[in-house]
Amino acid sequence: MEIGFVGLGPMGSAMAGVLLRHGHRLTVWNRTAEKAKALVAAGARQAATPAEAARGDIVLTSVANDAAVESVALGPDGVIGGLRAGAIHVGTSTVSHALSERLAEEHAARGQRYVAAPVLGRPPAAAKGELFVMAAGEPAAVADARPVLEQLGQRLFVVGERPALANVLKLCCNFLIFTTIEQLSEVFALGEKSGLDRATIFEVLTGSFFGAPVHRNYGRLILERAYDPPGATVDLAVKDTQLVLQAGEALSVPMPLASLVRDRFLSAVARGEAGLDFTVIARQAAEAGGLEG
Amino acid sequence: MEIGFVGLGPMGSAMAGVLLRHGHRLTVWNRTAEKAKALVAAGARQAATPAEAARGDIVLTSVANDAAVESVALGPDGVIGGLRAGAIHVGTSTVSHALSERLAEEHAARGQRYVAAPVLGRPPAAAKGELFVMAAGEPAAVADARPVLEQLGQRLFVVGERPALANVLKLCCNFLIFTTIEQLSEVFALGEKSGLDRATIFEVLTGSFFGAPVHRNYGRLILERAYDPPGATVDLAVKDTQLVLQAGEALSVPMPLASLVRDRFLSAVARGEAGLDFTVIARQAAEAGGLEG
Amino acid sequence: MEIGFVGLGPMGSAMAGVLLRHGHRLTVWNRTAEKAKALVAAGARQAATPAEAARGDIVLTSVANDAAVESVALGPDGVIGGLRAGAIHVGTSTVSHALSERLAEEHAARGQRYVAAPVLGRPPAAAKGELFVMAAGEPAAVADARPVLEQLGQRLFVVGERPALANVLKLCCNFLIFTTIEQLSEVFALGEKSGLDRATIFEVLTGSFFGAPVHRNYGRLILERAYDPPGATVDLAVKDTQLVLQAGEALSVPMPLASLVRDRFLSAVARGEAGLDFTVIARQAAEAGGLEG
Amino acid sequence: MEIGFVGLGPMGSAMAGVLLRHGHRLTVWNRTAEKAKALVAAGARQAATPAEAARGDIVLTSVANDAAVESVALGPDGVIGGLRAGAIHVGTSTVSHALSERLAEEHAARGQRYVAAPVLGRPPAAAKGELFVMAAGEPAAVADARPVLEQLGQRLFVVGERPALANVLKLCCNFLIFTTIEQLSEVFALGEKSGLDRATIFEVLTGSFFGAPVHRNYGRLILERAYDPPGATVDLAVKDTQLVLQAGEALSVPMPLASLVRDRFLSAVARGEAGLDFTVIARQAAEAGGLEG
Repeated sequence: MEIGFVGLGPMGSAMAGVLLRHGHRLTVWNRTAEKAKALVAAGARQAATPAEAARGDIVLTSVANDAAVESVALGPDGVIGGLRAGAIHVGTSTVSHALSERLAEEHAARGQRYVAAPVLGRPPAAAKGELFVMAAGEPAAVADARPVLEQLGQRLFVVGERPALANVLKLCCNFLIFTTIEQLSEVFALGEKSGLDRATIFEVLTGSFFGAPVHRNYGRLILERAYDPPGATVDLAVKDTQLVLQAGEALSVPMPLASLVRDRFLSAVARGEAGLDFTVIARQAAEAGGLEG
Repeated sequence: MEIGFVGLGPMGSAMAGVLLRHGHRLTVWNRTAEKAKALVAAGARQAATPAEAARGDIVLTSVANDAAVESVALGPDGVIGGLRAGAIHVGTSTVSHALSERLAEEHAARGQRYVAAPVLGRPPAAAKGELFVMAAGEPAAVADARPVLEQLGQRLFVVGERPALANVLKLCCNFLIFTTIEQLSEVFALGEKSGLDRATIFEVLTGSFFGAPVHRNYGRLILERAYDPPGATVDLAVKDTQLVLQAGEALSVPMPLASLVRDRFLSAVARGEAGLDFTVIARQAAEAGGLEG
Repeated sequence: MEIGFVGLGPMGSAMAGVLLRHGHRLTVWNRTAEKAKALVAAGARQAATPAEAARGDIVLTSVANDAAVESVALGPDGVIGGLRAGAIHVGTSTVSHALSERLAEEHAARGQRYVAAPVLGRPPAAAKGELFVMAAGEPAAVADARPVLEQLGQRLFVVGERPALANVLKLCCNFLIFTTIEQLSEVFALGEKSGLDRATIFEVLTGSFFGAPVHRNYGRLILERAYDPPGATVDLAVKDTQLVLQAGEALSVPMPLASLVRDRFLSAVARGEAGLDFTVIARQAAEAGGLEG
Repeated sequence: MEIGFVGLGPMGSAMAGVLLRHGHRLTVWNRTAEKAKALVAAGARQAATPAEAARGDIVLTSVANDAAVESVALGPDGVIGGLRAGAIHVGTSTVSHALSERLAEEHAARGQRYVAAPVLGRPPAAAKGELFVMAAGEPAAVADARPVLEQLGQRLFVVGERPALANVLKLCCNFLIFTTIEQLSEVFALGEKSGLDRATIFEVLTGSFFGAPVHRNYGRLILERAYDPPGATVDLAVKDTQLVLQAGEALSVPMPLASLVRDRFLSAVARGEAGLDFTVIARQAAEAGGLEG
């Protein structure tokens, strides 16, 4: 297929590489052009604008936040200006459901199609095509995008016909990740102070009822206090928690656990930990119990 | 081995049955004697007091709470009066770490040995010997109890030398179960109100990062609103949450998530749901968002 | 003095009336022009635009939220286009400290002066000049505005030289009001369920350590369940709580109590109580305890 | 009147001194006898047991907690053994409503009368007879105790006929004190970080809507960081918060704000601040915002 890819951060580059290896003709764009080098060396074409990258059958976007998506999709030289009628914009970024709804409308108004397909997983999983992809959009559009989405992920979930639904569900996943970190932080604090060995705590939990990837991956980071270099930063977590709370506000659904982790992340920023891995909030539960964080 | 079993509720009966099938000579006791019928029919001997049940190599106790353990272990005609020097009391109940420490002392003062071995799993798992068992105690005592503990569980974790450590870790597991229910409740509320299908939410979560037994088992109960008949009641959850908070208080470790679920369980009691399955607190997050609970 | 007044809701009308009675020459503007009638009948002149109202020595604005202030102050035909160099814009609305900072910059860039002077009190107090006024701005500007500010309030506090400081302090006052409502709600719930008479609770609290206006005014509304007609609505409280939380986020200061009342207000909206007095959240603490709300 | 006074800590000594100055014949008892010296020098008689102190018309108890009240009232040589039929035990301590109910029953079973009369105020207020007294009990008993209660307080509130009601209301007052400290802590943190002067914050709040004793007294301690020597310690606050939460549990009423301050107090203990004034929890909100506590 003729595919465009906009946004070549660690996630975007990894996904674009997978598509290239599957034999698609790929046109890429990134704000800082040098990030495209490796992909171009591997056969991708480099576009001068997002619009130019969007002239194929499908264009995927993978950028940092609402503002960046707005800019590359709807701004001057944005995707929306290059996409032909009937072609598909697949948004993989974690954005607000409000923006997702706006993108759906704007594309529809031009006869273009929009599929929201946020992904779960970190760059190493992305590079192996082992993400979890949750897609939502008009069924025919999702069907047309399916071959590409299946190449990106180990598993594809189609979750609804309104694109914003996929974004809400992705926000829920982030919420579960953040609050699981808080759960584990409190357990490590209580357990350690009682005299339990931290590695034993981790082994028992992940070896019994609590052995999901969310427990194993983040539990290990807390166990090893592996906060630096970060897999994903506190700053990013602040943004994502805000998105959850905004969704809750827009839908009038209180999310008390989200508020609690929001305070942890804010405090981490105040303590100078904004650039560390977001599991660093485990320090706060530990210190509140008089332990070294 | 010559084994005693004290406490034949759903968990106790199931565990005792497993031991009987493994060929041990079993003497059982229960406050209401008729609950012993099936085990006696299968070959167990019925004792008139906990002390009488405790005259073998090992006696296991499985009763409802601190008061019940205190009564059958330390009360008149209690286990402590029947156990010979060197024999082992294995406590499988979920009790406070304070009581566990007291049991360790009382048994040691009489030359008896105490192993705390709380278990994770519901009666059907117990009946198949598929519990998770977390044991703590003096190493030689744990070694002597090991064959029995391994018959009870699919996996045995030895977590420390002070018995109370196993109880703290069991409390941590309960804490994780309760707070995972709150996590999932908030996710179902936000997701459902956004328009997502509840079954889709469950499928995506458990099919991606959140597929541990704790997610699948309790998530399904919430999904199906299967609150009645209860697997374990709100009343029991109130007790267990108090144990977590008491451990936190004794060790000076704040557990904000535990406080939050405690309020959910108290409110469930106030709403007349004390006898329902403790996942019923999912109603509260739903109703707070204006949904039917 | 030659004074303009922009925004004639219940608060604005009351304040403008006070200024008129003190003998100032008053020019007023409101989006819906008919709200100016009573003031015009009493001698005020009606302007066609905010800019036109801003041609005197001082112009005060009193509108609903950030967007409205932005519109009347900085929009086309806004205050900023009519105010002469050296003249003063006094912002009395409860707005974000971010907007306050922007107003200070925009006015300064035109040689105009900006004083933030948010007020504490409801319309009846405003009509009697009995508000509490907290002002911040460049000292000479505050000094020039002082005679007017003193006429509006029973007490004027000058709280700093950066206008935004007054806005932060006003947000803190709102935060204290909202969280005091939650405090009293929980007390009424516990007390009532124990068998105490609600009126007795109110009498003892306000007659001992807890007799501030915040206790007496809002406590009485809860005591009498006087939620309709509203003095100030849940919708307004949602907005104001967001401003507090945004300030906390911008400054990296967690405000756990603010998150808690935010959830109460969101839930009130979800329950269909958006248009009731914001003390209606007392129902939630009551119902959580199994009482009628 | 012939009055006994049991418990001569700072509060008890001050109250006993007031009664002595009003001309009553006073018999006092304290666990450590030397604390009675000043009162004996001023004319009081010293008893060898609480029972002996309880032989007059009225005996008041003022001790630290449930266990101490249980001991001096119901233990060997306790008040209950000395009090004649028809005489009155006035309990001024802050205790659980459960214990209050038990005292009412035990006294009634012996034809004695029990009035719960917990007090609000610190020792200096007690010494001037300026406490707030909230009394509950059988009306005739309260009427007979009234002259004494009025001498102890600047104001007497009769709050119900079941003694435990006064204890619940006292717990509510403590709850309001603790949570007001949290409110003010968060305000000081946000305000200070925004650049506001701390003294200005205090002046504006207490000079406007927030000028109750609870705001002025505790706000000043936070403002001045006057945590040592303590007026009342963190340890005491832990106990009192537990009483509130236990009442909530017994009555099935969630108190989310109480849980939040409980965590603050526990953390203070963990940080080594158990012996400081309980307003020291203000440090935690400050430090969470990156400020010096």
